[in-house]
Amino acid sequence: MTSPQRAPGGFPVVGVIGGGQLARMCAGPAAELAVSLSVLAEAPDAAAAQVIPSAPVGSHTDVDAVLAFAAECDVVTFDHEHVPPEVLAALEERGVPLHPSPAALVFAQDKLAMRHRLTEIDVACPAWAQARTAADVETFAEQVGWPIVAKTPRGGYDGKGVRVVGSVEELADWLERADSDAAQGSGPLRDGLLLEEKVDFVRELAVLVARSPSDQAAAWPVVETVQTDGICTEVLAPAPDLDPHLAAVATEAALRIAEDLGVTGVFAVEMFEVRDPETGAPEYVVNELAMRPHNSGHWSMDGAVTGQFEQHLRAVLDLPLGSPAPRAPWTVMANVLGGDYPELYPAYRHVMARDPGLKVHLYGKSVRPGRKIGHVNVSGTDLADLRERAQHAADYLTGVVTE
Amino acid sequence: MTSPQRAPGGFPVVGVIGGGQLARMCAGPAAELAVSLSVLAEAPDAAAAQVIPSAPVGSHTDVDAVLAFAAECDVVTFDHEHVPPEVLAALEERGVPLHPSPAALVFAQDKLAMRHRLTEIDVACPAWAQARTAADVETFAEQVGWPIVAKTPRGGYDGKGVRVVGSVEELADWLERADSDAAQGSGPLRDGLLLEEKVDFVRELAVLVARSPSDQAAAWPVVETVQTDGICTEVLAPAPDLDPHLAAVATEAALRIAEDLGVTGVFAVEMFEVRDPETGAPEYVVNELAMRPHNSGHWSMDGAVTGQFEQHLRAVLDLPLGSPAPRAPWTVMANVLGGDYPELYPAYRHVMARDPGLKVHLYGKSVRPGRKIGHVNVSGTDLADLRERAQHAADYLTGVVTE
Repeated sequence: MTSPQRAPGGFPVVGVIGGGQLARMCAGPAAELAVSLSVLAEAPDAAAAQVIPSAPVGSHTDVDAVLAFAAECDVVTFDHEHVPPEVLAALEERGVPLHPSPAALVFAQDKLAMRHRLTEIDVACPAWAQARTAADVETFAEQVGWPIVAKTPRGGYDGKGVRVVGSVEELADWLERADSDAAQGSGPLRDGLLLEEKVDFVRELAVLVARSPSDQAAAWPVVETVQTDGICTEVLAPAPDLDPHLAAVATEAALRIAEDLGVTGVFAVEMFEVRDPETGAPEYVVNELAMRPHNSGHWSMDGAVTGQFEQHLRAVLDLPLGSPAPRAPWTVMANVLGGDYPELYPAYRHVMARDPGLKVHLYGKSVRPGRKIGHVNVSGTDLADLRERAQHAADYLTGVVTE
Repeated sequence: MTSPQRAPGGFPVVGVIGGGQLARMCAGPAAELAVSLSVLAEAPDAAAAQVIPSAPVGSHTDVDAVLAFAAECDVVTFDHEHVPPEVLAALEERGVPLHPSPAALVFAQDKLAMRHRLTEIDVACPAWAQARTAADVETFAEQVGWPIVAKTPRGGYDGKGVRVVGSVEELADWLERADSDAAQGSGPLRDGLLLEEKVDFVRELAVLVARSPSDQAAAWPVVETVQTDGICTEVLAPAPDLDPHLAAVATEAALRIAEDLGVTGVFAVEMFEVRDPETGAPEYVVNELAMRPHNSGHWSMDGAVTGQFEQHLRAVLDLPLGSPAPRAPWTVMANVLGGDYPELYPAYRHVMARDPGLKVHLYGKSVRPGRKIGHVNVSGTDLADLRERAQHAADYLTGVVTE
């Protein structure tokens, strides 16, 4: 195991469990801040392991590996939300400072726990129910009408673990699995399914905030996220034509949730923008929570005074937070998904030549169709132009257009 | 030796000879571009070795070490200008792509060669002479008047190797050394001393450009540099109240020098702003050249669409260059010099708390009085306010003020 090297002068080591692109994108800000990183990586060629000197290979489910890793770090944070509760408990028992804490993280790991808690603290959510049986599903569907959205409470991301269904039969396998999980007292469906009304939304928004253990908090502007086949493909920062009152209440809700749940680090609240059925007033309902830097915040790397990866490091170290102010009227982020060719470099040359203002961010990942392998940001004053530029670059890097 | 790990998809490895802060500050942009770095480092804890996984330890004067290092890289560039000609020749002989090339680099390594060449291509320089004897010095001083500036042609930086002298006696030791270097045919003074008039300048400017092997070039706005005791302490970007004609001719000069000398990568031209003694018109004379990312360009990391470290990587890889456009009306950079206390972290917390808009960049170096250990950038619209903020932060990190 390569030990992390500490910068002289009293500087700390931040451990990140998981070596994906979120850990990788901490590397630049960490180097500038003289904060050392250590990453518990899935493999020697994991995205983050390519760029961070201390990247021991180990599984986030292996208690011994995680404890040995954490012993060399001052604080530990996460590249993803999949560290099992027993591993988190072992870390906590050893006194390892964890950000976010296991007590907070459970609300990002378990969507049923999240819905219960948000409802308790009066945050607007879609109509929802916990369902263990076909009868539970029928009852809920009678209230909200078919189709409904069904989710596995644990383990889903990027649309996985989510189904839009028009009948109870389409959930037969999940209900069966819920029975066996419940019998065993473990598994993603041990508490049943989360059912939600299918929200008739105007668009999707995200509020990204950071909160430190000292309770300092900072919020970036509310952004619009565009999803394609359940994957975020584009982010517009700030959300165009957003009602100022909605922006204020959505931001207030995210900050309130962060405080109530005790979140530390960067925290994303994905929301639907809806209309009050009676008054037509713009409102939000909360869709998902993520307790880490998030795809909806990648724009901030180039578009804000303090990008989300720098802010996450500052937050988990309880350093004063940086300004989340935007640096341009608009920044557009487009995700680069893997296409059907392996050599990315020629396309990369092309997009750089076409657009000298483009900021290209790649994750060092091999190309597989549909895999998030990078993103581009572009900032300026003409939103339509920025969207065209970002989308062209992303499409070209994906191989969708070859011009 | 840790081998560099290449990102999948046809991405290259850039080798950097020297593991100082300039190599270190390439790490963030390289990670985002999926360009792998490998650094030939002075020590395992060199500034760049702390943040770059492939950082074999070896001397830039050791031909075998340099060749072994270069064999794993697609192109090789430099953290400093001290690689000896025989090492450069050995690399060139093996066909290693070097940026800048040895033929260009000589003009940054040898100030006499630089003065000869710039004079040949009609770039404005101070009055200058090559001196081997006391009589040569006296003759030059009669032409331009005492005091004069004497420089060792090779090996100087940050004011080292530069003397302002009022009499030939103050150069007695250098003239003696010039005799013995000439007799041996080697040494920094083998061709004598470079003498220059002491320029009566209004202020110091720097023009930073990048040039690629394909002859694409890009120039950042001309900046003002403020020197204290021969060390750059502050940079104002762009140079306030700069005459637009002077900005144009200074930029044209830098681009012309880059092309004429065949420079590839980032290239800094340090200039004096002077007044035509007859017309009073603003003019420049060239002071020094640097063929690498340069202190006068640190502002661009936060203040320009493309920072100098990203641009250097793009240039040496012959990738299309990025936009050098500023991202704010003003950006101020202040260098952080080592003070007389070893624990930097508490001061770092303080400056972050005082100014959430501050961008702190530290080099992972131990604190020694006067050593450049970092810099801060701050961007905005009120230059006086930005200068105060940058200087306070730098002074606080240095320990000059404790408030």
